[in-house]
Amino acid sequence: MFAEMFENVRKTCPLIHNITNYVTVNDCANMVLACGASPIMADDKDEVEEITTICTGLNINIGTLNARTIESMLLAGKKANELSHPVVLDPVGAGASALRTQTAFKLLEQVKFTVIRGNISEIKTLAVGAGTTKGVDADVSDRVTEENLDEAVSFAKAFAAKARCVVAITGAIDIVADANTAYCIRNGHPMMSSITGTGCQLSALTAAFVAANLNQPLQAAAAAVCAMGLAGEIAHSRLTEMDGNSTYRNYIIDAIYRLTPEALEKGARYEVR
Amino acid sequence: MFAEMFENVRKTCPLIHNITNYVTVNDCANMVLACGASPIMADDKDEVEEITTICTGLNINIGTLNARTIESMLLAGKKANELSHPVVLDPVGAGASALRTQTAFKLLEQVKFTVIRGNISEIKTLAVGAGTTKGVDADVSDRVTEENLDEAVSFAKAFAAKARCVVAITGAIDIVADANTAYCIRNGHPMMSSITGTGCQLSALTAAFVAANLNQPLQAAAAAVCAMGLAGEIAHSRLTEMDGNSTYRNYIIDAIYRLTPEALEKGARYEVR
Amino acid sequence: MFAEMFENVRKTCPLIHNITNYVTVNDCANMVLACGASPIMADDKDEVEEITTICTGLNINIGTLNARTIESMLLAGKKANELSHPVVLDPVGAGASALRTQTAFKLLEQVKFTVIRGNISEIKTLAVGAGTTKGVDADVSDRVTEENLDEAVSFAKAFAAKARCVVAITGAIDIVADANTAYCIRNGHPMMSSITGTGCQLSALTAAFVAANLNQPLQAAAAAVCAMGLAGEIAHSRLTEMDGNSTYRNYIIDAIYRLTPEALEKGARYEVR
Repeated sequence: MFAEMFENVRKTCPLIHNITNYVTVNDCANMVLACGASPIMADDKDEVEEITTICTGLNINIGTLNARTIESMLLAGKKANELSHPVVLDPVGAGASALRTQTAFKLLEQVKFTVIRGNISEIKTLAVGAGTTKGVDADVSDRVTEENLDEAVSFAKAFAAKARCVVAITGAIDIVADANTAYCIRNGHPMMSSITGTGCQLSALTAAFVAANLNQPLQAAAAAVCAMGLAGEIAHSRLTEMDGNSTYRNYIIDAIYRLTPEALEKGARYEVR
Repeated sequence: MFAEMFENVRKTCPLIHNITNYVTVNDCANMVLACGASPIMADDKDEVEEITTICTGLNINIGTLNARTIESMLLAGKKANELSHPVVLDPVGAGASALRTQTAFKLLEQVKFTVIRGNISEIKTLAVGAGTTKGVDADVSDRVTEENLDEAVSFAKAFAAKARCVVAITGAIDIVADANTAYCIRNGHPMMSSITGTGCQLSALTAAFVAANLNQPLQAAAAAVCAMGLAGEIAHSRLTEMDGNSTYRNYIIDAIYRLTPEALEKGARYEVR
Repeated sequence: MFAEMFENVRKTCPLIHNITNYVTVNDCANMVLACGASPIMADDKDEVEEITTICTGLNINIGTLNARTIESMLLAGKKANELSHPVVLDPVGAGASALRTQTAFKLLEQVKFTVIRGNISEIKTLAVGAGTTKGVDADVSDRVTEENLDEAVSFAKAFAAKARCVVAITGAIDIVADANTAYCIRNGHPMMSSITGTGCQLSALTAAFVAANLNQPLQAAAAAVCAMGLAGEIAHSRLTEMDGNSTYRNYIIDAIYRLTPEALEKGARYEVR
């Protein structure tokens, strides 16, 4: 099934509008290209609606939000909703400042999202109004482990039901859930957290997958999460003892570029709960 | 001839002022350094005129334009004109939104450009007020091929005459033209379109080349386009079957860094029409 | 001693707030992660005080300053001072425009810095109100050499005394000084100047080192400067004849990622004057 999801990205080359942070934006663009889709970045209020109109998916990332771009996020999100385009939210650092938390809530109120992708602390902030965010990384006390996985799955499903969308909580174990079904995904490598923006890149990748698979957002998001994790594994296997996080960053994007739908299908490690 | 153009860049190390987008800005800076020039990025209205004054060339790229930076582009462009500094325009996504198209037209009205570099859809938008832009990439229906090359050359010369500057239309076949002469360049590799910002990088590189060769903007721009294409070929020849677009991005910049004037002269594949 | 400084970074994983330019921000984030610390980038006036509060160090870089971010720099800097967090200033291009010079002076007036790190031209601008800055690079006439090193050390100590902080002047020979003691550091490689942002990355790295070694800002800054230079040497030794500045950029970050405290201790080449 994931093979087909990925094939659809490569077949349809969806154009993805990204309103994202200036830290990881280049990697997001190259990641979207690597998977076979096409990125456009535009964040001015005077063009975001028009740009979203020519695209087939929208990715909103609040990583370096400001008053000017928040307005653009809201305008683009509403226009995408009007056009029934899928919209992904990456609530980077929700919980780390009132501005981030309130902006995330405002976006949730005014825009219907297809997928919300974040780490467990960010998603907890959205779900219960508070998380123990350590900056833009998940707090240790929040982390999803084999021990608390059932509980985390229930949490993810409940929040997905409440937010009426797919929720992707990524970490050592990833959970991609709607109200009824959760994919627990065990792809990936711990070293991915030593690169800035693997989460941002995954959100952009997810936007491409859901844009190419409009009727299956849960499966498409799960496929994107597996693809990213698998790329992390493949890239890690190439590292020499001299290579560090910068080369690893390049190799992960490379791995998505080289990944075939069949290899994704074969390499995806998940269970449905 | 191209060897000399490139030698002049390495000899004079021109300082290039870039007002560019936040997606590919780092690659643009490293590309300018790779060719032997020096980049400075500054986009605040309170300093752009002064920064342009200490530079020898200006590169304006509208990739992530906004009201604040549009004002800065106009100020810097006019100041560069006053000082007779060469100015390059990269009209990223012209045709994709009214804001981009109108900003490009406003820049063309108020600033005299030395070179305009874009894909065929962007240049058509500037020339005839409309193109079939697919986001920031050229539309398939617009593409320059061996079949429509004569027509495209005539179009490029006519637009160059109208805009009174050099026009560089890049794609599978590149056309660099002024009103009378066109270089048709066949360097490059299709995989270059799978990297974000090869066009932006080329515009920055072009600014360095025209700044170092003030009296020969047509030849300097053609040399820059050949250099970029040749770098794309050299970089591609290094790729292993595990490497993808991210490593390719690095290798292209590396190839410009290692490129010698002699290798450029020898590797340039062009005809004059 | 430097080994312990570095171990403290890896042990305490300080969260570093960066208000920095959009050119090199991604490399700064990956550099902070490479050394074992954690970066957060936030530049909106409505959140910078709160973000700084959850961090343990602040890095202010004026590389692409504008009215909006200057306000944020001042707010964050004052808040960090209130909380006794270490603050690093990177006065990129001070001397290249009045806006940069005046902003640097305003920051020095309103914020107490722990370390100021820049090239000799930038630091001269701050010290005497004028430097012969060539854009964002040091002017040749300013450069620190074996011949003028004693004079440069005196200058660094005098400015450190005046600014009541540690001053790190980086170039072919680096000087890290407080009012009484100067480390003259001979690590590094000339090719580092062909990469955009090695200075910015070093400032971010320095913020991590001083945040993890609160009582020894001089030694911590010197350790960071040695680490960066050593990484430049290690990375250079890996380059093939096809590799250029882009691969070198990656390898430098990789080298910090792989660097051990022991290797830093052993590889650091400095004298105290």
